[in-house]
Amino acid sequence: MRTYPGCIVCFFRQALEAAKISGADEKTQNRILIELSQKLPDFSLNSSPPEMGRLVYRLVTDITRRKDPYLEIKQKSNKFAFSMYNELKKRIASSPNPLIEAVEISIVGNIIDYGIYNSNDITENVRELLIKEERAVKEEEEEFFNYPAFESALKQAENILYLGDNAGEIVFDRLLIEEIKRLYPDKKITFAVKGGAIINDALVADAEECGITGVARVITNGVDAPGTLLSLCSPEFSEAYNQAQLIISKGQGNFETLSSEEKPIFFLLMAKCPVVAAHIGCETGTFLLLNISSTDFL
Amino acid sequence: MRTYPGCIVCFFRQALEAAKISGADEKTQNRILIELSQKLPDFSLNSSPPEMGRLVYRLVTDITRRKDPYLEIKQKSNKFAFSMYNELKKRIASSPNPLIEAVEISIVGNIIDYGIYNSNDITENVRELLIKEERAVKEEEEEFFNYPAFESALKQAENILYLGDNAGEIVFDRLLIEEIKRLYPDKKITFAVKGGAIINDALVADAEECGITGVARVITNGVDAPGTLLSLCSPEFSEAYNQAQLIISKGQGNFETLSSEEKPIFFLLMAKCPVVAAHIGCETGTFLLLNISSTDFL
Repeated sequence: MRTYPGCIVCFFRQALEAAKISGADEKTQNRILIELSQKLPDFSLNSSPPEMGRLVYRLVTDITRRKDPYLEIKQKSNKFAFSMYNELKKRIASSPNPLIEAVEISIVGNIIDYGIYNSNDITENVRELLIKEERAVKEEEEEFFNYPAFESALKQAENILYLGDNAGEIVFDRLLIEEIKRLYPDKKITFAVKGGAIINDALVADAEECGITGVARVITNGVDAPGTLLSLCSPEFSEAYNQAQLIISKGQGNFETLSSEEKPIFFLLMAKCPVVAAHIGCETGTFLLLNISSTDFL
Repeated sequence: MRTYPGCIVCFFRQALEAAKISGADEKTQNRILIELSQKLPDFSLNSSPPEMGRLVYRLVTDITRRKDPYLEIKQKSNKFAFSMYNELKKRIASSPNPLIEAVEISIVGNIIDYGIYNSNDITENVRELLIKEERAVKEEEEEFFNYPAFESALKQAENILYLGDNAGEIVFDRLLIEEIKRLYPDKKITFAVKGGAIINDALVADAEECGITGVARVITNGVDAPGTLLSLCSPEFSEAYNQAQLIISKGQGNFETLSSEEKPIFFLLMAKCPVVAAHIGCETGTFLLLNISSTDFL
């Protein structure tokens, strides 16, 4: 997905948000925004938003000298998500269709995104969606939720690459991985996290904290971008990417960077921002399970 | 009020919104955002946000060559507000305290702000607030609603200058002016609109369309800014401003540009953006009737 004009506005919003979270005073916040505005004209709008996002956060990090300002937030998110683990595990087990339940729960986890929401919104939204008895995916959204194709791709794939998104959220991914392994104990699952601190995206430490290391082989993609910039990824990641028969891609950032790739990718995400929603043609807030064959907009 | 970091983010949001309303295609929208980012470093952050706002909208106008892109929106707003005139007139007449009712209704009208909201939100919010039976100002907000001081200043003033804000909204201001004239038929009321097209701010044509010309002397301030930039205002406006014993200032833009002036100004507005709300120390959405003596933050 290319960078839309709405993304440019969002870069400034994100820079300010990250500056505040890094503890920057007002003068430093202004400096960050001014320096961002100076860099903007050099940026190619044909790139994907996470490419610029990476530069935006790097600028904030360089100026504030806080290398991982979201560390505390990530640890809190991990704890918050973990507090729901047992309840959700039971919910999946008692569901008439445990796999679809696990898929939906993993998408609910995609709300834990500090690039878009603040902490209170996240806790409230996740709880609200999980408390509901009815299915999270509404009937009118089913055109964006290609579960039959996902189920069939899952059956056939031997090697699965799972692209993680945010800290906390990965507890919800773990539940889906555990469900996949319960159904298909022989599948080989590799879970990829980001290669360096970027917003609240999960790193290896988070994968360890959330128990992903116990259910999948964990690797990093080698890059500190809020998505998957294939041209920069490590050889280890590229190999896993090329060998996978199924790629489960979580979140907007991975969608924005991989939506044009001709690979067996299923994108699991919530359309959180109006630009991504408009690009896909759905409402903001829609739960998405997309693959290339199910769509003509990727 | 000075320009906060949050205002810088908002300038980009406003530029994009205005570009879209002007019918700019995506390429032009990008050009506008890039040119804005190039101009930003030269801007003094000690200025008030409407000073920069004026340049932002001028940039959009220069590039799109649409001189008054909000014209249609303004006309719709006038009609929308007028459709409620009779109902609101009765509501004021039947209120136990018609003046306070008229003040509150005039602040409800401040929602009609296309710099902040979109059309659907405005219609919904205004109707919702007006449908309610209870008073619009909640008890906990009364520290920001200095009605006793306003009532007393109104009694004493001979010349009143009323600074209008947006098209449509001025129908609600007309109701307040009519109530003031019912109570005090001898007061001389001058109503000032903006000197040139800027967002959906009311111009002379709107004052005529909304019947302000029948209840007050209408002048322009001579400037196309979304606030009152005193140093640029016309001699006619400056005279009215200096001679007034009471200035009723509507909306955020007039607040942002006049909040440090030592004049008998009462600011009637809704705190619509988080930056203004934080500056004042209230919640977003609070109804405000502020004067200098009632506050130490102006």
